[in-house]
Amino acid sequence: MKLNIALLAGDGIGPEVIDQAVKVSNAIAQKFNHEINWKPALTGAAAIEAVGEPYPDETHEICANADAVLFGAIGHPRFDNDPSAKVRPEQGLLKMRQKLGLFANVRPTFTFPSLIDKSPLKRERIEGTDLIILRELTGGIYFGERGRKDNGDTAYDTMTYQRFEIQRLAKKGFEMAMKRSKKLCCVDKANVLESSRLWRETVQAMEKDYPEVEVTYEFVDAVAMRLVQWPSAYDVMITANLFGDILTDEASVIAGSMGLMPSSSVGSKVSLYEPIHGSYPQAAGKDIANPLATVLSAAMLFEDMDLTAEAQAIRDVVNKSLAEGVVTEDLADGGKAYKTSEVGDWLAANL
Amino acid sequence: MKLNIALLAGDGIGPEVIDQAVKVSNAIAQKFNHEINWKPALTGAAAIEAVGEPYPDETHEICANADAVLFGAIGHPRFDNDPSAKVRPEQGLLKMRQKLGLFANVRPTFTFPSLIDKSPLKRERIEGTDLIILRELTGGIYFGERGRKDNGDTAYDTMTYQRFEIQRLAKKGFEMAMKRSKKLCCVDKANVLESSRLWRETVQAMEKDYPEVEVTYEFVDAVAMRLVQWPSAYDVMITANLFGDILTDEASVIAGSMGLMPSSSVGSKVSLYEPIHGSYPQAAGKDIANPLATVLSAAMLFEDMDLTAEAQAIRDVVNKSLAEGVVTEDLADGGKAYKTSEVGDWLAANL
Ligand SMILES: CC(C)[C@H](C(=O)O)[C@@H](O)C(=O)O
Ligand SMILES: CC(C)[C@H](C(=O)O)[C@@H](O)C(=O)O
Repeated sequence: MKLNIALLAGDGIGPEVIDQAVKVSNAIAQKFNHEINWKPALTGAAAIEAVGEPYPDETHEICANADAVLFGAIGHPRFDNDPSAKVRPEQGLLKMRQKLGLFANVRPTFTFPSLIDKSPLKRERIEGTDLIILRELTGGIYFGERGRKDNGDTAYDTMTYQRFEIQRLAKKGFEMAMKRSKKLCCVDKANVLESSRLWRETVQAMEKDYPEVEVTYEFVDAVAMRLVQWPSAYDVMITANLFGDILTDEASVIAGSMGLMPSSSVGSKVSLYEPIHGSYPQAAGKDIANPLATVLSAAMLFEDMDLTAEAQAIRDVVNKSLAEGVVTEDLADGGKAYKTSEVGDWLAANL
Repeated sequence: MKLNIALLAGDGIGPEVIDQAVKVSNAIAQKFNHEINWKPALTGAAAIEAVGEPYPDETHEICANADAVLFGAIGHPRFDNDPSAKVRPEQGLLKMRQKLGLFANVRPTFTFPSLIDKSPLKRERIEGTDLIILRELTGGIYFGERGRKDNGDTAYDTMTYQRFEIQRLAKKGFEMAMKRSKKLCCVDKANVLESSRLWRETVQAMEKDYPEVEVTYEFVDAVAMRLVQWPSAYDVMITANLFGDILTDEASVIAGSMGLMPSSSVGSKVSLYEPIHGSYPQAAGKDIANPLATVLSAAMLFEDMDLTAEAQAIRDVVNKSLAEGVVTEDLADGGKAYKTSEVGDWLAANL
C-alpha cells in the first residue's frame, strides 16, 4: 500500500515525539511492504512565527490531499494568559478541525496493567476500564455565533446543533458500539438545553436501526461524577463539543496512563491522529518526552486504514517496551530512564 | 434571635432528611435561646401533583419573606427520560433560583478523616482537600435565549453574561479567599468563548482591589483533569453556571463523603441551604437515608446568620456521631445501621 501522510509536528515536544512515530511507522512499512510518503507542514506557534498564521493555507492543502494526518502538539507559553491575542495557536486547531471537517474526536481511555497503580484512582475502581468518548468536534458552542453587546459589558456565545451533525456522530457511535459491547451512552444536558433535547430526540430516533445496541441517556453532570466513581461502567459515549472537551480530559487521567493515550479526529475525507497530551514546553528539546501516545496514535491510523496487523504490531511492541522497562523518565520509577529517541529506536528495532 | 425559615422538603427522601435538620435546628434554638418559625411550602413533584406547578407562587411568597430557606431535594422518576414533558420538577428549581435571585451556589468539598477511605481516589491524593466552588447560578446558558429553527432541525442555546453578574460572583469569591488561604481560581474557557473572555477581563480588573489574593486562571477542561489528580491544590474557585454544574458534581465524589456534603445558594435578600445529593427515590419512605448533608446545610445557614457557635455546635455533634458510629446504612460498614430518624434524635439529644 502507498500512503501519503501529512506530518504536523507542531510546538514544544511535538517534533520529538513525532520523530519516533515516524521511525516506528517506517519500520512497519518496511516489514509489511508499504510505502509511506511523509509530507511535513507547519502548524501552531511554529507556523505563526514562520508565516503569521497557525494553520496556513499551504498546510491545509497538504492535509486535505493526504490519506491521513499525523499531528504532534501545539501551544506555546508565549500565548498563554493572553486570550485576547490576535493570533493564537488554538485558532489554528479550530480552523483545521473545521476546514478538514474533522467531526468526530475519538478518545479511548484504557488501562495498562503495568501502569494502573499510577492512577489517582484506586485500582479496584479502574480495573477493566476500556471506554471511548466520541466528541463532536466541528459544531456546538465552539463554532456558533459569538460577540459583545452593551459597549462590551455583555458577551454571548451560541451553542447550535443541526440534526445532521448529531446523526453523523451518533452513527459512528452506534457502529463502534456494534463492534464492542453494544452499549452506547448519550451524554447531554437535556433537562436544561434545547440543543441537548435535539441530541436526545435524534439519537432516540436512530435506536430502531440498531436494535442490538442498548442506549442510555445521562446528564453531563452525573457523568462527570460517575466517570470518577466507576469508569469501567462506560463503553462508547457520544457527546457535544464542549461537554466532550471537559469529559475527555477528565477521563484521560483516570487510567493513570495519560502520557500514553492516543486519539483520532475523524473526517469524511481525511482523519487526523494525535497524542492527547499537550506541547509540554518545559520538556521541549530535551529528548525526555514520552513518545508512546504518538506511536499509539500511529497505530490508530493504521487501524483506520484497515491495516489491522500493522496496528497490532505497534501495540504489541509498545506493550513489550513497557514490560521490559524501555521507557522515558515519567515511567521509569527509579529504574533506567531512556531518552525519547532511544525509545523510538528500540521500538523500531524490535518490530 | 427570631428566625423565619421556609421549609421546602420536596420529593423522595427530602421530607425525611429535612425532618432531622429541623430536629437539630430546634435543639440548637433551645440551647442558644433562639426562636425558629418554620414555614413549610410545596415544591418539586409534590407541588406539581398538588397544584400543577413545581414552584408555586405561594411557595415563592413564603421563601421571599423568610430569613432563609431550608431545602430537601426534588426530582421524581416519573419525570426522568422525558425531557420534553411540559412541567418538570427541574423547572421549579430554575424558577426558584431566578425569582429568589440566588446568584451564587456555594459548594464546599472537604474530607472527613473517618470517611477518607471511601473515596474512589487514593488517600494521598485527597488528604487535605478543602475547596469551595462558587458557581454562578442565575445566568449563563441556563437562562439565555434558546429555541428551534429550520422546522425543528436546528436547536440553539445562548450563553450570555453581563459584567455585573460576574462582578457579583467574583466579589464573593475574593471575600471568601480573603477569609481562607487567599487563593482564587477563575475557571473558564477563554481560549474559545467570548463570555469567558468577559469573565477573565472582569476578574482581572478586580484583582487590584484585593492585592493580597493570588488569582489564577485555568481552563475548565484542565480543571476537570486536575480536580481528580490533585484536588488539594485548589481553594476557592469561581465559575459560570454550566461549568459549575459539571465541576461541582465531579468534585463532590472525590472526598468520598458525597452523602455528607452541604451547600448554599446565596441571594442578595434570602439564601437557600440544601444537601447536594438528590431525591434518591428508591430510598424514599424507608427511613434509611443519610440526613447529615442536610443537617450540615443547616449549619451553613446558622453560619451565614453570623451564629458561628451554633454552626460549630452542629458540626461538632456530626463529627461525634461519625466517630461513635451513629450512622445510617451507607456509612455503617458492617456495623449497626441507624435509621434516619434515629440519627436525627441522637444528634438533637447530644447537642
Ligand atoms: C485548545 C482548545 C481550543 C482545545 C479545545 O477546547 O477543543 C483543546 O482543549 C482540545 O480539547 O483539543
Ligand atoms: C436539575 C438540574 C436542572 C440542576 C442544574 O443543572 O443546575 C442540577 O443538576 C443542579 O446542579 O442543581
